[in-house]
Amino acid sequence: MRILLTVSYDGTDFCGYQIQPNGRTVEEVINLAIEKLTGEKVKSVASGRTDSGVHALSQKVHFDTSSTIPPEKFSNALNPLLPCDVKVIKSQRVADTFNARYSAKNKTYRYSFFVGQMEEPLETRYKTLLPSMPDIALMKDGAKLIEGEHDFKCFLASGSSVKDTVRTVYSIKIVRKGRYLDIFVKGNGFLYNMVRMIAGALVAVGEKRLSLAELEQVILTGDRQNKIKTMPAKGLTLFSVIYK
Amino acid sequence: MRILLTVSYDGTDFCGYQIQPNGRTVEEVINLAIEKLTGEKVKSVASGRTDSGVHALSQKVHFDTSSTIPPEKFSNALNPLLPCDVKVIKSQRVADTFNARYSAKNKTYRYSFFVGQMEEPLETRYKTLLPSMPDIALMKDGAKLIEGEHDFKCFLASGSSVKDTVRTVYSIKIVRKGRYLDIFVKGNGFLYNMVRMIAGALVAVGEKRLSLAELEQVILTGDRQNKIKTMPAKGLTLFSVIYK
Repeated sequence: MRILLTVSYDGTDFCGYQIQPNGRTVEEVINLAIEKLTGEKVKSVASGRTDSGVHALSQKVHFDTSSTIPPEKFSNALNPLLPCDVKVIKSQRVADTFNARYSAKNKTYRYSFFVGQMEEPLETRYKTLLPSMPDIALMKDGAKLIEGEHDFKCFLASGSSVKDTVRTVYSIKIVRKGRYLDIFVKGNGFLYNMVRMIAGALVAVGEKRLSLAELEQVILTGDRQNKIKTMPAKGLTLFSVIYK
Repeated sequence: MRILLTVSYDGTDFCGYQIQPNGRTVEEVINLAIEKLTGEKVKSVASGRTDSGVHALSQKVHFDTSSTIPPEKFSNALNPLLPCDVKVIKSQRVADTFNARYSAKNKTYRYSFFVGQMEEPLETRYKTLLPSMPDIALMKDGAKLIEGEHDFKCFLASGSSVKDTVRTVYSIKIVRKGRYLDIFVKGNGFLYNMVRMIAGALVAVGEKRLSLAELEQVILTGDRQNKIKTMPAKGLTLFSVIYK
């Protein structure tokens, strides 16, 4: 049977999701726990990779097993075998045709900021410091320019070899609560570092370092002209994955 | 001159505030940074010790120096010399008679919970898991019994050698936001583990494992009868210190 796990992790001490020869990864830790539990070799499939230092509130991972453990019991059975920075929030059976990656309809990432004069140890683990609150109305106008189907090569990390850079951003929500600022980006797929650059672009707009006309040009021409910073990994969280 | 620092720290990787021969402590890390900056041996004084694993949003620490660095510049000068889990939020000059410990009028600690079915990596670092939301009205009634001047030997950790166990709890505020629950305890001083036991007592009341009459008896007799759990250190944060 095919099991779908909802997994939450603190990415701080991981070299990203995907298994690699040198470095602790979320995928390896999950596969090892499943193998310990079922005694079977496993090849799990996640909704997508998250980069080094990026967190997940709700990553989705499927795997096949002939174990007789009831599907909904996998979460409680796996958690004692997982380190404290990765936990399975939910487990369920899915159809054998379901695929955690290819059946995904859309994904939402959250980028989180806090406003302060300096790094604060109790804030900085999951949020990026901003010296002052950007102009939220301007950021919302900037978000409107990014929403929709575009060739997002302007937000493609240098060195990435992806050919097709057309993606659809369904919505960008900007939520301010006191000195906290969250940007939620929902799309059908994201290029490497894309959400971290969208966050950087919107903050640049809100801090009046990048005009709306300039942002429009960046998107149209695909040339970010060194005007957009890639925000640090620690502020980024895979927030949810929605399936067809 | 005497400098007062407002210090924030993530207690997770510290063996508490107070210097000890074996183990990383906040006090040692702060003293080393001051000594590196000023070239002077320093004996700093904090508003109080926090235990191993306890955090601080606003710990207060004073020290004396003959340095010519302007008082308000100490924060920016010290921060690059501090590890990322301790930062100085503010620095200011205070009178030579001011004492971070003895001039304190009251202190507030916050104890934080989240409600969930299992540990969640992005919540668990600073909050303690509860399986369901306790009855807030009952907790508030319980808090009323604890507020005021009492002999708090009922909340004294076993093995503690303190003689005078009379303390005044000025107020207990219970704040629920969605699946989060914070208890703010303001008092003139706290016994070892006292706030963690107050949090445990109030949760026991809210979960109907301890009646209000039983809590009243515990306080009156000083015997907690194994009915009150000491909540884990990670949920506790020194929230603020107010001076005369």
